[in-house]
Amino acid sequence: MRPHLPDEDVERLREQMRACLEARGGEVSARARAAALGRAYLALDETGRQRFLQVLVEDFGVDDGAVDSAVEALRAAEGREARYAAQAQLRNALEAPRVRLLTQFNALPDGIKFLVDLRAELMALSRQDPAFRPIENDLKGLLTAWFDVDLLELKQITWDSATGVLLEKLIAYEAVHAIRGWDDLKNRLAMDRRCFAYFHPRMADEPLIFVEVALVNGLADNVQKLLDEKAPVQDPQAADTAIFYSISNAQRGLAGISFGNFLIKRVVDQLAQEFKGLKTFATLSPIPGFRTWLDQALAEGAPGLIQANERKVLNAAAGKSHGAKGTLKTLINRGNWHSEEQLRDALKGPLTRLCAHYLLNEKGRGGRARDPVAHFHLTNGARMERLNWLADTSAAGIERSAGMMINYLYKLGEIDNNHEAYTGSGEIAASSTTKSLAKG
Amino acid sequence: MRPHLPDEDVERLREQMRACLEARGGEVSARARAAALGRAYLALDETGRQRFLQVLVEDFGVDDGAVDSAVEALRAAEGREARYAAQAQLRNALEAPRVRLLTQFNALPDGIKFLVDLRAELMALSRQDPAFRPIENDLKGLLTAWFDVDLLELKQITWDSATGVLLEKLIAYEAVHAIRGWDDLKNRLAMDRRCFAYFHPRMADEPLIFVEVALVNGLADNVQKLLDEKAPVQDPQAADTAIFYSISNAQRGLAGISFGNFLIKRVVDQLAQEFKGLKTFATLSPIPGFRTWLDQALAEGAPGLIQANERKVLNAAAGKSHGAKGTLKTLINRGNWHSEEQLRDALKGPLTRLCAHYLLNEKGRGGRARDPVAHFHLTNGARMERLNWLADTSAAGIERSAGMMINYLYKLGEIDNNHEAYTGSGEIAASSTTKSLAKG
Amino acid sequence: MRPHLPDEDVERLREQMRACLEARGGEVSARARAAALGRAYLALDETGRQRFLQVLVEDFGVDDGAVDSAVEALRAAEGREARYAAQAQLRNALEAPRVRLLTQFNALPDGIKFLVDLRAELMALSRQDPAFRPIENDLKGLLTAWFDVDLLELKQITWDSATGVLLEKLIAYEAVHAIRGWDDLKNRLAMDRRCFAYFHPRMADEPLIFVEVALVNGLADNVQKLLDEKAPVQDPQAADTAIFYSISNAQRGLAGISFGNFLIKRVVDQLAQEFKGLKTFATLSPIPGFRTWLDQALAEGAPGLIQANERKVLNAAAGKSHGAKGTLKTLINRGNWHSEEQLRDALKGPLTRLCAHYLLNEKGRGGRARDPVAHFHLTNGARMERLNWLADTSAAGIERSAGMMINYLYKLGEIDNNHEAYTGSGEIAASSTTKSLAKG
Amino acid sequence: MRPHLPDEDVERLREQMRACLEARGGEVSARARAAALGRAYLALDETGRQRFLQVLVEDFGVDDGAVDSAVEALRAAEGREARYAAQAQLRNALEAPRVRLLTQFNALPDGIKFLVDLRAELMALSRQDPAFRPIENDLKGLLTAWFDVDLLELKQITWDSATGVLLEKLIAYEAVHAIRGWDDLKNRLAMDRRCFAYFHPRMADEPLIFVEVALVNGLADNVQKLLDEKAPVQDPQAADTAIFYSISNAQRGLAGISFGNFLIKRVVDQLAQEFKGLKTFATLSPIPGFRTWLDQALAEGAPGLIQANERKVLNAAAGKSHGAKGTLKTLINRGNWHSEEQLRDALKGPLTRLCAHYLLNEKGRGGRARDPVAHFHLTNGARMERLNWLADTSAAGIERSAGMMINYLYKLGEIDNNHEAYTGSGEIAASSTTKSLAKG
Repeated sequence: MRPHLPDEDVERLREQMRACLEARGGEVSARARAAALGRAYLALDETGRQRFLQVLVEDFGVDDGAVDSAVEALRAAEGREARYAAQAQLRNALEAPRVRLLTQFNALPDGIKFLVDLRAELMALSRQDPAFRPIENDLKGLLTAWFDVDLLELKQITWDSATGVLLEKLIAYEAVHAIRGWDDLKNRLAMDRRCFAYFHPRMADEPLIFVEVALVNGLADNVQKLLDEKAPVQDPQAADTAIFYSISNAQRGLAGISFGNFLIKRVVDQLAQEFKGLKTFATLSPIPGFRTWLDQALAEGAPGLIQANERKVLNAAAGKSHGAKGTLKTLINRGNWHSEEQLRDALKGPLTRLCAHYLLNEKGRGGRARDPVAHFHLTNGARMERLNWLADTSAAGIERSAGMMINYLYKLGEIDNNHEAYTGSGEIAASSTTKSLAKG
Repeated sequence: MRPHLPDEDVERLREQMRACLEARGGEVSARARAAALGRAYLALDETGRQRFLQVLVEDFGVDDGAVDSAVEALRAAEGREARYAAQAQLRNALEAPRVRLLTQFNALPDGIKFLVDLRAELMALSRQDPAFRPIENDLKGLLTAWFDVDLLELKQITWDSATGVLLEKLIAYEAVHAIRGWDDLKNRLAMDRRCFAYFHPRMADEPLIFVEVALVNGLADNVQKLLDEKAPVQDPQAADTAIFYSISNAQRGLAGISFGNFLIKRVVDQLAQEFKGLKTFATLSPIPGFRTWLDQALAEGAPGLIQANERKVLNAAAGKSHGAKGTLKTLINRGNWHSEEQLRDALKGPLTRLCAHYLLNEKGRGGRARDPVAHFHLTNGARMERLNWLADTSAAGIERSAGMMINYLYKLGEIDNNHEAYTGSGEIAASSTTKSLAKG
Repeated sequence: MRPHLPDEDVERLREQMRACLEARGGEVSARARAAALGRAYLALDETGRQRFLQVLVEDFGVDDGAVDSAVEALRAAEGREARYAAQAQLRNALEAPRVRLLTQFNALPDGIKFLVDLRAELMALSRQDPAFRPIENDLKGLLTAWFDVDLLELKQITWDSATGVLLEKLIAYEAVHAIRGWDDLKNRLAMDRRCFAYFHPRMADEPLIFVEVALVNGLADNVQKLLDEKAPVQDPQAADTAIFYSISNAQRGLAGISFGNFLIKRVVDQLAQEFKGLKTFATLSPIPGFRTWLDQALAEGAPGLIQANERKVLNAAAGKSHGAKGTLKTLINRGNWHSEEQLRDALKGPLTRLCAHYLLNEKGRGGRARDPVAHFHLTNGARMERLNWLADTSAAGIERSAGMMINYLYKLGEIDNNHEAYTGSGEIAASSTTKSLAKG
Repeated sequence: MRPHLPDEDVERLREQMRACLEARGGEVSARARAAALGRAYLALDETGRQRFLQVLVEDFGVDDGAVDSAVEALRAAEGREARYAAQAQLRNALEAPRVRLLTQFNALPDGIKFLVDLRAELMALSRQDPAFRPIENDLKGLLTAWFDVDLLELKQITWDSATGVLLEKLIAYEAVHAIRGWDDLKNRLAMDRRCFAYFHPRMADEPLIFVEVALVNGLADNVQKLLDEKAPVQDPQAADTAIFYSISNAQRGLAGISFGNFLIKRVVDQLAQEFKGLKTFATLSPIPGFRTWLDQALAEGAPGLIQANERKVLNAAAGKSHGAKGTLKTLINRGNWHSEEQLRDALKGPLTRLCAHYLLNEKGRGGRARDPVAHFHLTNGARMERLNWLADTSAAGIERSAGMMINYLYKLGEIDNNHEAYTGSGEIAASSTTKSLAKG
């Protein structure tokens, strides 16, 4: 087939798909044919791929007529068994024929990775054209079954056991604090660090999600210190705190099939087993939505956002350092405010108060916490423990959260109640310090 | 919970199941709770287990009202997207809530094996009470996804690499020619033998299905010779024929989720790769239904079953050896007919003819071959190649097929056509010798 | 070469050995040639092998002339460096050229196993003809280096991880309490049992020595009970005592290269780590030399062997049960004395006293304990803890030690002192009960 | 013990060494004590280590008196057996007691690596003080036995299977063409490359020696092209030539225990097996001694070194490019002669001629080829095939061999004869082109 899949090729393609679905020559032959189709797909260009998927959307979707008949049959069914049989019939009618073909793609050497990547493509397409949503959803259903968390393997990743292939994937997939090279990576796998990932047995070198942990003393309050390659390695047996400082989803195609919750809790269990001295399990997390929210609020000029005394302090600081009148808006948009001591000190009060407020009170859709990382940890039953000023002074850290980070605390006895309170009534667990900070 | 699960315990059980389904305290807690339920189930007696499952049947099945509403919504939906959303809604309504709980049982240490065994129990219960069919079917759906053939591992089993645990399972699961002990087993894993099995990655020591192969010269015609522990080991590089002499499904709970077809063909590929001298791939198979059919036909006195000349020969042979009048019916029911030369010779003609007829012409439900082993290999695209007289003189062999066995031939170029002809129009591929044998 | 290696073949053989030693064509070619020689050796019959080895003995031994010259050179050497160089020269002259060829046999696929087995053959030959001693000793030197205990791997053997090949070797090599089949073997690998072995990295499926341990409560006093396949499996976490009930050397060719001492102590360490409840580490050991010694003593009519009161009791018991006069000699030679209650009771006193005496007081060569198992454990620093009456009522147990067994106790704080006392002055560590038993 | 090991500590040390050698408390205790000594050694500073080793040199060496007595006993011995016993006695007397202690260091967790590194230290010390030679030699004897080539494992190293620990060691140990980082390393492990190493089973992550191979078409003539990370990956199945472009010994402490010869030939065998299209096995090797030799010859003003016509050409080229008179000496010492076309062209003639002459005719000690890499490959039986101009234009390449490299050809049928001719009479195998090049 030609890369852009012209019409004649589409015709042949449709015929081959049909052969797969009818299992001509038997199921073994059908799988071989499906694998050939999969290889053909990989050789297509963007247009070609979209046309390939369109065939699946249009010609191999649910047959509305069959659904209607099955609905009629169900209405007519009398008695428990007849009703059950009719339901089964209807269930079948509601499953698109293409689901079978998608399953057959497993016959490719890396079939399951192929399907995970295909879903990532379908998700992108769906955002442009809702016609792709049903097939995207079909595929999500399959992946949800195959990636059931208890069918996966939780493995520790170490410098001694991980292969080159896997290690370079960690570098590629790290989504929170970019890994700057092999030395940085090796440092994150040192004796006082831990890295764990979930793997699917048929995708051996592909982490699905991974977490990086530092074994330290006391709640960590600065990510640059944590990642300092020159800092001496600590004795992990002497640590009292495990800090989860990075969690990265590695496969876009598995979005919405969540393992993060399991990953954190199983790693907590495993670490608690290995290191008897650990008393505290917490994160050092980014607050990715703070500046976006703040900028919008400042733009809208929300009344009462800044308190009078804060305003005074800011003005004074601005005057001292630059001889100009300063508002939060102007000051925070100076690129290097955090490296000027007076400015920094003046901003600390209002910014920490506003950030605590943002985390505790600002809501997104469905009453959930507006900050996505907050929502994730709150759903897991964690508590907002401590807001850390100047905790991430990298360019990204300043940009997304004015350099602040927060510790979410995972406290064994509280997790279930916190989860219930948050998912039930939206109640957010937080330390009293955090709460009073929000009040100013 | 008490072993027989009295009413009060059922009440508590129902409450715990609800907690799992609502994921109280979060999904991690729900899984832990499901695992506890699974362990409780394993501790129940037969009555207790049945009551446990009944709760799932009655309280956690499809909600008919929800289905009806979803059906109404679907009828009311207008436009492609609305229709699709309504279909998705209906699909959800048709999935019983217990499916979620069944999935959560994966959290048990051997969760997937637990579910496979649970299905075996549900299949037995369904045969007695159709109310268990829907849940049996729910579980079959899950297992079908998880045991997709391309998510499994095909492994060779050898005396050098298989563990004690796995080896004793081969002995336990062999279903065609019982393994008489460790020496017999070791002989079946000798240098001129091969054994392959499919495994699920989360059920490492449990074969799902396994096949035993002998590397020989020419089509094998006697299974006792094949299994003779004293026969010298042959050089496998000199063999021209691979004989598949035993295929055993090892997990009752995976009935209807077929791997046999794949197993044979993938093993053919692998052997062809390893041994360049192999020209022929065939089975030496039992004919399990022959005597049952024959006895019934003889009882019904089907006219023309025995030909006149055969009748004469049988009579003569009976006379010579026992001084009595002999019919096929009386002669074949003498326990040791096959050890008396004259009787044996007289029976050979009619029995081989009738057996070829049975294989080629007798039909079961849906027009398929009446013999189940024949149906399996014909569906795979194999050809009936040669009927072998006195090929299995064990008690079981005499009892089920009057000692006959048949070679099914897997010929690469023919397989797809044979499959299509058989599954399409019921046409059976057979050698001309077999066909003429059936005619007498 | 022909199996019995006639003279002409010997000539060719000698030439090929020379080619190996001169490394003609380079060391890689020489090794290939040595491997061919090794394969030729394996194809020889007994006569042929002896002639093969004789060539090595006669033509490739130490060159006396070269030794004499080197000795002269050493006497003439003046100054430290010259002396050292001369010593090095002499050391070379004292190493037989065949040592190089023996080393080259490592090039065989199972070269190191070949050499271990070759040593077993050479040990047998040496016993008949001392001319083989030097080469046997050369080989022992090589094996001593290669089988240094810290180059070996200590592995646990379990039913879940050991292969068929390894398991059948355990059955073949068990030297103390014969393994009666696969069920017996499986029972010895049950949850409340442990089996450990040393392995050489290039002899992966060949245990060098292995020990079997039972995790029980209190000192075990009966081996039949320990090995009872029907006895329920105990919870190993609840055990307070580890009983080492069998230690078998698996390779005759490694005689004199001892690992037993290391094996016991490393297994003690490992078990102490795994099972915190273990307080006692002891053996349940045979007393293989007791009856041989006793029979000889009785034959020699050693005065005072039997005490007067014992004599009376024996006589009485003999009378009661058989109406005949009984001495220890006659009674103990009745095959089934241990199944007759009165006889058994009468024999208990004198036999336990004599056995304790034998263990504590009878000496072998060099002042060591006469009983070889006693010598082994005493050298390891263990203490004679308790003599057990009717502890092994198998035919072998009755025959070698009148059914008695003994517990040797390994007590961490005592081991070094016990070892020093025994190896220094022959002093035997024993419990007071054992000592008083010996006194009668 | 204090880092610099003052006199009192030396006294204690001596006592502890004695305890090890006498195996006080048994061999298990002795090994534990030896391991403690090994850990103490690692904690010492340079002075301390030297003093530690001096104790071994002075107090635990060969006892000259014992040697003299054994010599006397040997002279007095009459008869074959007595003589043999006396030889054995003498052999024992010639083995220094410290050999036992060195062996016991194996009890350290990485004992064998400890000993390899210790030998590297002893080699350095021996060069300063010959008193360390005997102990260095003792250790070499032990390592020679333990690192017998057939007790090692040959493993392929791939990006998919090698761990971070191993990969960074390749970077550290590469001795011929420095690996510039992880991308360079990954490129050397690409599909058209191979890397093999020998490993000792008890030093799992430590390569002993490794070779890097490129699968190409035709003899490679430029190492920069070979290592170009941007060059497209070739299909290895289409390659006709395997180029061994780097061989690095990774353990200084194993100097003189040679595996290089085996490594090359076993890798040739393995590649020939895997890639049926390979016809040629050759190296692309540095000529490390050329410039040193040349500079010396130029300094000595060896008459006839430069031919008259060459002199003229050089002069002319120098004039054209710099307006100055040029000799080989002045021209070659201009840092960038190879980037000036005319100069380069003028130098090509004399430099290639002189280099061929150097390789073929210049001799080192014992008549061997003066160039060490040449000596290595000639000893292995390879042939000088082709000299390559501007084959390594890195700074190092220009510096050591004026940018030239040579292909040594490993031709199966020739290897043994080449080896014999070279090691016997110093005859060098070379292509006729190389030979005539040397003549000019």
